[in-house]
Amino acid sequence: MYCLETYVSLIYTKRMVNIAIIGFGYWGPNLVRNFSAVKNCTIHTVVDFREERLRIVRQNYPNISTSTQIDDVMSNSAIDAIVIATPVFTHFELAQKALINGKHVLLEKPMTSSVAEAEALIELASKHQKVLMVDHTFLYTGAVQKMKQMIELGVIGNVQYFDSTRINLGLFQPDVNVLWDLAPHDISILNYLKKEKPFSIQATGISHTKNNIENIAYLTVNYTSDFIAHFNCSWSSPVKIRMLLVGGDEKMIVFNDLEPTEKIKVYDTGYSHKTDEEKNKILVDYRVGDIYIPKVESKEALAGMANDFISAITQQTTPVSNFESGLEVIRILEASQQSIKANGKEIKL
Amino acid sequence: MYCLETYVSLIYTKRMVNIAIIGFGYWGPNLVRNFSAVKNCTIHTVVDFREERLRIVRQNYPNISTSTQIDDVMSNSAIDAIVIATPVFTHFELAQKALINGKHVLLEKPMTSSVAEAEALIELASKHQKVLMVDHTFLYTGAVQKMKQMIELGVIGNVQYFDSTRINLGLFQPDVNVLWDLAPHDISILNYLKKEKPFSIQATGISHTKNNIENIAYLTVNYTSDFIAHFNCSWSSPVKIRMLLVGGDEKMIVFNDLEPTEKIKVYDTGYSHKTDEEKNKILVDYRVGDIYIPKVESKEALAGMANDFISAITQQTTPVSNFESGLEVIRILEASQQSIKANGKEIKL
Amino acid sequence: MYCLETYVSLIYTKRMVNIAIIGFGYWGPNLVRNFSAVKNCTIHTVVDFREERLRIVRQNYPNISTSTQIDDVMSNSAIDAIVIATPVFTHFELAQKALINGKHVLLEKPMTSSVAEAEALIELASKHQKVLMVDHTFLYTGAVQKMKQMIELGVIGNVQYFDSTRINLGLFQPDVNVLWDLAPHDISILNYLKKEKPFSIQATGISHTKNNIENIAYLTVNYTSDFIAHFNCSWSSPVKIRMLLVGGDEKMIVFNDLEPTEKIKVYDTGYSHKTDEEKNKILVDYRVGDIYIPKVESKEALAGMANDFISAITQQTTPVSNFESGLEVIRILEASQQSIKANGKEIKL
Amino acid sequence: MYCLETYVSLIYTKRMVNIAIIGFGYWGPNLVRNFSAVKNCTIHTVVDFREERLRIVRQNYPNISTSTQIDDVMSNSAIDAIVIATPVFTHFELAQKALINGKHVLLEKPMTSSVAEAEALIELASKHQKVLMVDHTFLYTGAVQKMKQMIELGVIGNVQYFDSTRINLGLFQPDVNVLWDLAPHDISILNYLKKEKPFSIQATGISHTKNNIENIAYLTVNYTSDFIAHFNCSWSSPVKIRMLLVGGDEKMIVFNDLEPTEKIKVYDTGYSHKTDEEKNKILVDYRVGDIYIPKVESKEALAGMANDFISAITQQTTPVSNFESGLEVIRILEASQQSIKANGKEIKL
Repeated sequence: MYCLETYVSLIYTKRMVNIAIIGFGYWGPNLVRNFSAVKNCTIHTVVDFREERLRIVRQNYPNISTSTQIDDVMSNSAIDAIVIATPVFTHFELAQKALINGKHVLLEKPMTSSVAEAEALIELASKHQKVLMVDHTFLYTGAVQKMKQMIELGVIGNVQYFDSTRINLGLFQPDVNVLWDLAPHDISILNYLKKEKPFSIQATGISHTKNNIENIAYLTVNYTSDFIAHFNCSWSSPVKIRMLLVGGDEKMIVFNDLEPTEKIKVYDTGYSHKTDEEKNKILVDYRVGDIYIPKVESKEALAGMANDFISAITQQTTPVSNFESGLEVIRILEASQQSIKANGKEIKL
Repeated sequence: MYCLETYVSLIYTKRMVNIAIIGFGYWGPNLVRNFSAVKNCTIHTVVDFREERLRIVRQNYPNISTSTQIDDVMSNSAIDAIVIATPVFTHFELAQKALINGKHVLLEKPMTSSVAEAEALIELASKHQKVLMVDHTFLYTGAVQKMKQMIELGVIGNVQYFDSTRINLGLFQPDVNVLWDLAPHDISILNYLKKEKPFSIQATGISHTKNNIENIAYLTVNYTSDFIAHFNCSWSSPVKIRMLLVGGDEKMIVFNDLEPTEKIKVYDTGYSHKTDEEKNKILVDYRVGDIYIPKVESKEALAGMANDFISAITQQTTPVSNFESGLEVIRILEASQQSIKANGKEIKL
Repeated sequence: MYCLETYVSLIYTKRMVNIAIIGFGYWGPNLVRNFSAVKNCTIHTVVDFREERLRIVRQNYPNISTSTQIDDVMSNSAIDAIVIATPVFTHFELAQKALINGKHVLLEKPMTSSVAEAEALIELASKHQKVLMVDHTFLYTGAVQKMKQMIELGVIGNVQYFDSTRINLGLFQPDVNVLWDLAPHDISILNYLKKEKPFSIQATGISHTKNNIENIAYLTVNYTSDFIAHFNCSWSSPVKIRMLLVGGDEKMIVFNDLEPTEKIKVYDTGYSHKTDEEKNKILVDYRVGDIYIPKVESKEALAGMANDFISAITQQTTPVSNFESGLEVIRILEASQQSIKANGKEIKL
Repeated sequence: MYCLETYVSLIYTKRMVNIAIIGFGYWGPNLVRNFSAVKNCTIHTVVDFREERLRIVRQNYPNISTSTQIDDVMSNSAIDAIVIATPVFTHFELAQKALINGKHVLLEKPMTSSVAEAEALIELASKHQKVLMVDHTFLYTGAVQKMKQMIELGVIGNVQYFDSTRINLGLFQPDVNVLWDLAPHDISILNYLKKEKPFSIQATGISHTKNNIENIAYLTVNYTSDFIAHFNCSWSSPVKIRMLLVGGDEKMIVFNDLEPTEKIKVYDTGYSHKTDEEKNKILVDYRVGDIYIPKVESKEALAGMANDFISAITQQTTPVSNFESGLEVIRILEASQQSIKANGKEIKL
């Protein structure tokens, strides 16, 4: 004898979720490939306004329908969920329409163009009791999962700082600046690893193009505690760097995403505060110890994200990369833009 | 037949400069070793209040006098110049006394604790017609000289940004924050490479110690042009990084000071602005080309600095690392401290 | 008016080449993908004895026929050429059958299990006037092409040595040792870059398995000149290294295949011989200069190989990776095996 | 109440050992600096035939006598021990004279020019009951000590191979080839880490100079077990590599001596043999796990060596870098030279 909840869950578990994917550009093929492999999930239709992109879908996935019309999927009652992989400025309108039509929604990062839009979608999802999720793929990587686990277990002690560098020769985006393009990855990781809510931010940056969109930007995130986070983002660096330092008072972690296998290094290094007694003396004791490079899962992160979305639908689980996480990222990005335009003014969150 | 100026110069050239060095701590031995090798220069006396430090001097350099009394050298008319390698907070008083006593002065970096002090010393040096110089050793490295040369020759095109990371597990200084400790190197390089005067700065940072001295700090320097400079300084990083990016629109330079031989890499990479015609399109064209690693002089930079100081005295040359350079560094450091304490407020310079 | 040869060539140019691919294991999908994109080429059939592999072909390439029977393609007159991507020990028999049936043949590396087999195939190809080619893909990489060009232009001077390290945690092959598995890449590069014929070889190695197949092996190749080549191959290294040094007396090249973009570094470094006059003195002068990292083509090497094979058929060009190159590799591998089993005895080639 | 042995030991402990150092070239200053700091040891005299080198000694160490005459120290009964830091070809004659004169002897590496010489010195030392030691400094590094400890504790399991690469742009030595110059370091480490006696060697190499002295050479050392060691030495590499792999069936160690702090990496990686049952199948199972970078002592290795020599004299301890170790190195070097000249012939040891 089952209780009702279990019963519903069982029904859901058996049920197949039909999804549509809107947008088959750079990221679309990865979404199709990964959702194809999810149990309980069928890709019903792929939508793109470019016929030549749809041809590629049909060639590789003869069982998937294609369409150039968004309304084909919005109004189709056979479709349970919509994955939106289009430019950011279209996210709100598409997600709104999908939720109103009773579809679960997965949005590519960043969630929306503004906090107001993100909040409106969240309200709508709540009203219609639909899953609303943002694809912050990085949260599903073995590296981030390992860091999360170490922090939760207290391995690195009190987390004191977060320092991210994500720079390379990047495509100058025509509509969003380098922070909107590159920082969502690291901001979502920050929010995932550090439970404390940020208090304020300052951002600076520069545009070397006529459209006044920053190609280099720096962001500091402040907290009421003595934790600090900093982000260095650039489309104009001749070298590619993907490095994140997470400092605890017991251990420190270096996450170098360009390392093929040794992505995470844990330094058994910390410092302890001496008493204040000796005035004018250095008040800190260092310890430099062993380094440990844990083996991290190398399975594709996007597969984890796709499964998490389908589970959220069929089993009412809370996804790792949920809408709150998505909203927090937008909140920081929006504030950053204000700060840059106000010459680095502190913006309270 | 010589004109008077040449004549004086010739006399000076022949004359031996007698110097005293005050402070024989961490850097003192390097100063003694390098000044010992300068032609036309004799180290007359080393002063330190710690007798055990002076014993080391006598053991290794039997011909150098030692003293625990500063006045021994201040009042000694045989001494032409004084090198001050003591904690920053003592710089002003010692340099002032030396200048008043008619001595040329070389100060270790940073020059003074405040802009007011630095300006007072500059005025004093001018009044007494004495050389006042600051030891920004990095300016004499083969790497910085090579970058200077490339920029002057227009090799990298229009210089667009400067991005410095200088982080490691560092000694927490008891009296100055991490910017005062680590940033002078890179700020002096910035001022040397980029002629334009900075317009304003913003700085953020955090202290993990009870004395409220920042061990992690970030600094953005703004200009009226579209040039930007950023500094990331930390005493709390498990990894040591000494990296400087100098981006031009023709080429970009990466200066990695931890590379034993390949310190400078020049990337034949740049981007050009397309016309605005195509609206909503990416307005930048990239070029990724060859990379070039020039051989840089590996001679000791401090030797160049020591010679430059003695030349400035004997031949009235303007040293590379002159007092203006020293003052500019203090101006930025002082403003940074104000900015950090005002939660990252923009400070005009 | 054309002469006959041109005429035939023109016909060939227009004609479509129908190929069959035997073996759809690890490398097969890459072959199918690349040959699909070659102009003038159609993949007619893929053969594999594993039905589950063929299912993947049909799913992704509905226009390609599949078969579990080799004779289906051998006897099919619509098929002009056969690509053989099966285990080495089957190469001879399959290629022999294909040539006898009037097909052009492309063999995966290494060409055959023995020199005798390779020579027999070459004779057969000559008799039937068919193209016989070996897929040494590396020869088509931008890096190897750049090295070839520099050597041909005399940029690095007189080539003096070749030093290859190809080690990692590798799959222990059940039938061939680590040299047969890993060295063909570098031996084919050696033969391509250095025209001189090798004179003799010595090889040493060890097996840590019961089947007595070496998992670590070292090979020296000697020449009548003072050129030398050495290969270090291992399936048992915890670190992955893919490094090749090519030393000239004018410049030296380092080819690091694990570098994502900076694969080739050219060191402006060399040494010149002093005269013998000063006896017992060092007779060599060093020069250490700049380093240069040329941009190398990053297009897929296998595409170049596939095109080269089809050109050889349609336009009678000599492929870069021709049967002579294939034979030379086998000659060295066979001798290496003899040498290892004879405790490192020198084997004349 | 002490037993006699303890009593003698106590006397010795108190006694000061007077040493002379012959040869003040490249390594001499390091020896003087380190022996100066050894308790119970006084440097009595430094001998060098170059007066300008002795001047440097007197300037820096006024208490040390200097002489250009070897006999001054050989015949001086106040001198207990002689450190010989001269070219290899002079080692035998100087050490022989010192032992006959009743002095303890420390020889720089390599010990002598031949096995016969090394054996003669060992016999002489035994006859005169004097300490005879060879300075294989590397054995005293934190990295080698850590590897030794891990191997002794069984941490890496059964040791299966040793693979050393020591290449760079090196000074061409006028009298010895690159193996005699560079390999002693790694051969002494090999002998220290692996107790089993080597069975035979093969060596190959090439000379690019007229004096026929090899500047590139390769050496394989064979054992009756399935252990193998290989050495790659070159004076002609544009890149500097100092890397040693030590493979066990439980773990593998990478010792990269160019890493400033992370010299040793321990890979929790190994392979286990499957049973032979499945014929024609891969018989090995891999395991890839965490990596561990132990903190290694960073104190100067030469200090440990100097103390070990003085302890051997005063307390009759057996030094880590003893004459047996020195002899084994010479045995392998001498055989290598024979092998190279005989075209890589296997030489039994």
